[in-house]
Amino acid sequence: MSLYTQFDYQMMSRAIALAGKGIYTTAPNPNVGCVIARDGQIVGEGFHLRAGEAHAEVNALRMAGDKAKNATAYVTLEPCSHYGRTPPCAAGLIQAGVKKVICAMQDPNPEVSGRGIRMLREAGIEVYSGLLEQDAASLNPAFIKRMTTGLPWVQLKMAASLDGQTALANGQSQWVTSPQARSDVQRYRAMAGAILSTSQTVITDNASLNVRAGELPGSVQYLSSSVRQPLRVILDRHHRLHSELKLYQAGGPVLTVGHSDSDLNVSLMDSGLLNLTQVMEDLASQHQVNHVWVEAGASLAGSLLKSRLVDELILYIAPKIMGSDGQGLFGHMGFERMEDILELDIKAVSVVGPDIRVTAVPKYKG
Amino acid sequence: MSLYTQFDYQMMSRAIALAGKGIYTTAPNPNVGCVIARDGQIVGEGFHLRAGEAHAEVNALRMAGDKAKNATAYVTLEPCSHYGRTPPCAAGLIQAGVKKVICAMQDPNPEVSGRGIRMLREAGIEVYSGLLEQDAASLNPAFIKRMTTGLPWVQLKMAASLDGQTALANGQSQWVTSPQARSDVQRYRAMAGAILSTSQTVITDNASLNVRAGELPGSVQYLSSSVRQPLRVILDRHHRLHSELKLYQAGGPVLTVGHSDSDLNVSLMDSGLLNLTQVMEDLASQHQVNHVWVEAGASLAGSLLKSRLVDELILYIAPKIMGSDGQGLFGHMGFERMEDILELDIKAVSVVGPDIRVTAVPKYKG
Repeated sequence: MSLYTQFDYQMMSRAIALAGKGIYTTAPNPNVGCVIARDGQIVGEGFHLRAGEAHAEVNALRMAGDKAKNATAYVTLEPCSHYGRTPPCAAGLIQAGVKKVICAMQDPNPEVSGRGIRMLREAGIEVYSGLLEQDAASLNPAFIKRMTTGLPWVQLKMAASLDGQTALANGQSQWVTSPQARSDVQRYRAMAGAILSTSQTVITDNASLNVRAGELPGSVQYLSSSVRQPLRVILDRHHRLHSELKLYQAGGPVLTVGHSDSDLNVSLMDSGLLNLTQVMEDLASQHQVNHVWVEAGASLAGSLLKSRLVDELILYIAPKIMGSDGQGLFGHMGFERMEDILELDIKAVSVVGPDIRVTAVPKYKG
Repeated sequence: MSLYTQFDYQMMSRAIALAGKGIYTTAPNPNVGCVIARDGQIVGEGFHLRAGEAHAEVNALRMAGDKAKNATAYVTLEPCSHYGRTPPCAAGLIQAGVKKVICAMQDPNPEVSGRGIRMLREAGIEVYSGLLEQDAASLNPAFIKRMTTGLPWVQLKMAASLDGQTALANGQSQWVTSPQARSDVQRYRAMAGAILSTSQTVITDNASLNVRAGELPGSVQYLSSSVRQPLRVILDRHHRLHSELKLYQAGGPVLTVGHSDSDLNVSLMDSGLLNLTQVMEDLASQHQVNHVWVEAGASLAGSLLKSRLVDELILYIAPKIMGSDGQGLFGHMGFERMEDILELDIKAVSVVGPDIRVTAVPKYKG
């Protein structure tokens, strides 16, 4: 017999769906949803919308009011036990008199994991954890990665023709992909905590690299009134960025990396290249960045892959043939044996307008 | 009010499904299915299985016997009116006493199109044409192209990594794609009238380029007892093929092209390259080839695209990154402006084992 009833599964699924409503806005906090049920009826539900605002449990408890007494709370993540910008949710649940708490997963932060559950149990509440854990974890891959490894979760976006070219030999590249694909990119930017690029890309394309509300797909147009601009992180070893660039005219913060006056001071490796692992560590620890979205050229893309820093490749493939005399996707990788090439797992293949979007996860060796 | 009843649609759909049972075996004949119905009941059905054997109508009439009298025949292609290896189907339908004939489409061969319908009408049979015409046409893209243009329908098969590479810089390429993708290729070979390649590819890979029953996917294993070997057509300008090659050890016919003793004598173009349009015309006219399946390297692939001879690109994309220092898909195309690059329409995207299969139709310009 299963520990959980069918009703439990339904309630947690609902809580997970609610949590998803925060994916564009909660950073650097995780997405969390909560459902409170009593006598087979939902009496309260809520989710976390924005860092600094109420947590999911608080919103659900507010809605439930007195009906939270002796109810069961379904939460997608272990309730917090610490006083941060808001009081601890575990305390709120205790105060409201809930009888049982079911979590999908424990807090991935090793420093606090289990504390919320312990606080609830010590108050006499029945607590279970692990219901639909994988689904709940897939809400927060970036938050979980930062909490467990100290590194952000990195998505590398690339776009190419069917034959893997990003530009013609003469550098022309506008546009390989469709407006629909570019609009889809806006949606990913809106989810990210930081957008990483290079001064080379910023200058060549005079790119803003911001989230443009008007270019978001229709399905997330509701965000347009409250767009959160991710931190734009630009590798600029040779101090080439200047204030005339669109990058600085668009709203939102910019962080420069790699030169003596830059915002982030990062050491060089023996190869003379920037230590990209250190860049990522600093973004995670100093700027609470969970999720980095990379838009850059072959050189940074290849370096990130070689440094094993890419968690997911998002490749837009346009149904076009440009010829092998164009510019390739990842630069020279120097593989000499088929056994050495980088393999990936396809996670999803979608059609975006006339283009194809492939989501793939690198399988780093050894 | 529609000309056709819902029952008519159901019967023609059934006839189209039956026709599809011949896709691996009818070449150079078209795929045809036939259903005979009387008083709302199917009394006979059949399809064309193999050139030289009974046509769909004959098989369906045999099953119907006396019940064909006053019945309606649903045929996916206009019944033939000529004495070939079998007597004309129109005569058979007349003799059996059918009352009405509904065809999905007329015969695409301009020399005989409409004759079968006329023969039936002159015998007092009610005849309609055009029910589910597009579905019926999609059964026979290759037959229709040859009949209407004198050229075969050409599918170009290519396989590459996510970054458009077919081999490493040193030529290593075994294997980019998975066993499942290679098995899928066997299925396409089994459908083709001819497989086109070059002596370069045949020698480098010591390729047999035949249909290997044991490597067909499970879904078409039923063919293994009766595999039809397509004609293997090898471009061999410099007379490099020799009898020790696996090509000649595997069963099935081989046709050489391009040297003085070759089976097909084809002129050179001003560029010094073989006239590929003439190769295709000769295959269509002299060898009744409807469907050419091309497996070759970047050079022939690029040339076929430039000659606008490719009707469909079948691209297997393996989730691997090989680096831009490898060998590209289509060679140098020499495009200097983004407006000039070759665009395609995605017709289908499928997952084949760990790989992706993209089916795309070139949109030749001007």
